[in-house]
Amino acid sequence: MPKLPAVDPDAAPERRGSGYPEPFKSRMGDRIKKRLGDACGLTKFGVNLVTLGPGGQSALRHWHTQEDEFVYVLEGEVVLVTNGGEQVLTTGMCAGYPAGKEDGHHFVNRSNRPAKYLEVGSRIEGDNAFYPDDDLMILERGKGIVYAHKDGTKY
Amino acid sequence: MPKLPAVDPDAAPERRGSGYPEPFKSRMGDRIKKRLGDACGLTKFGVNLVTLGPGGQSALRHWHTQEDEFVYVLEGEVVLVTNGGEQVLTTGMCAGYPAGKEDGHHFVNRSNRPAKYLEVGSRIEGDNAFYPDDDLMILERGKGIVYAHKDGTKY
Repeated sequence: MPKLPAVDPDAAPERRGSGYPEPFKSRMGDRIKKRLGDACGLTKFGVNLVTLGPGGQSALRHWHTQEDEFVYVLEGEVVLVTNGGEQVLTTGMCAGYPAGKEDGHHFVNRSNRPAKYLEVGSRIEGDNAFYPDDDLMILERGKGIVYAHKDGTKY
Repeated sequence: MPKLPAVDPDAAPERRGSGYPEPFKSRMGDRIKKRLGDACGLTKFGVNLVTLGPGGQSALRHWHTQEDEFVYVLEGEVVLVTNGGEQVLTTGMCAGYPAGKEDGHHFVNRSNRPAKYLEVGSRIEGDNAFYPDDDLMILERGKGIVYAHKDGTKY
C-alpha cells in the first residue's frame, strides 16, 4: 500500500451523486468520482478519477468563466458533445476546455460498459458556469456557490 | 481524427531533452513529453504525457514553492523517491505534491521497459524550485526563469 505523497485510487473514497438540483441530478446516471488531488493534499487544482456507467453523463453541458478543464480517457469510450457537434473519444484520447471559451461541453457514455477518465480543473476564485441547454447557472457568491435559474433566481 | 477541444496524443508533437544545464540534463535519459494541455489551449495548468525509458528520470528530485503537481501512472512502473524513501508506483497509481511542501520528489524508471504517465502542474507566477540532492535552483526573475547554483550564481 503506497504512502503519501503516493495514493492508490483503489483505496480512495467513492463519491456518488451530483450537487445539481433535480431534474438535472438524475441525468448524471451511474457516476462515481474519486478525488485524487484532494487525497494528495492539492489545493490549486482538482483531479478526479471518474467511472461513468452506460447512460451516464460527466456533467450537464457547460463552460466555465475562470476554470481550465482537462479530461483524459483511461478506459472505454465516451461521446464528447460541444457546440461543434459530437465525437467519440476512445481510451488514450483527451480534451481540454480553456476558461472563458463559450463552448459548452460534456461527456455522455452511450456505450454498454463503464468508461473511466481523469478530469482536472483549476481552482480559481470568481468562477461561474453556464449551461446552454438547461435552465441553470452556477454563480460564486461570497464563499459559496449558488445554483440559479437563468433569470437569476435560486433553486 | 478528433478535432478541438479533443486531441489525440498520438498526433501531438514529441519533445525530447530537458532545460537543465549539464551534468543534470543527461541524467533524464530517454524521456519524451507531449504537451497535451497546451495542445488544448489551456494556460492555467500544464498537462504532459510522458514516456520515460529504462534508466530515465522524470526530473531531478525537487519541490516547488507555488506549483501543485500531480502524476498518474498509465503504463509500466516507476520508483517514486522522496525524503521518506522509495516506493514503486504501478499502473493506475498516482501521487501529488502540494506547493511549498519541502519534500523533494521525482520518478526513476528502474524497470526494463518504458513507463508512461501524466504529469499536471499549476502555472502560478513567482514559482521557485529547489533541489535537495543537486547544486541547482530554478528561480523566477522577471518574465523568465534562471538556472542557478545554490550560491545564487547563474549556470
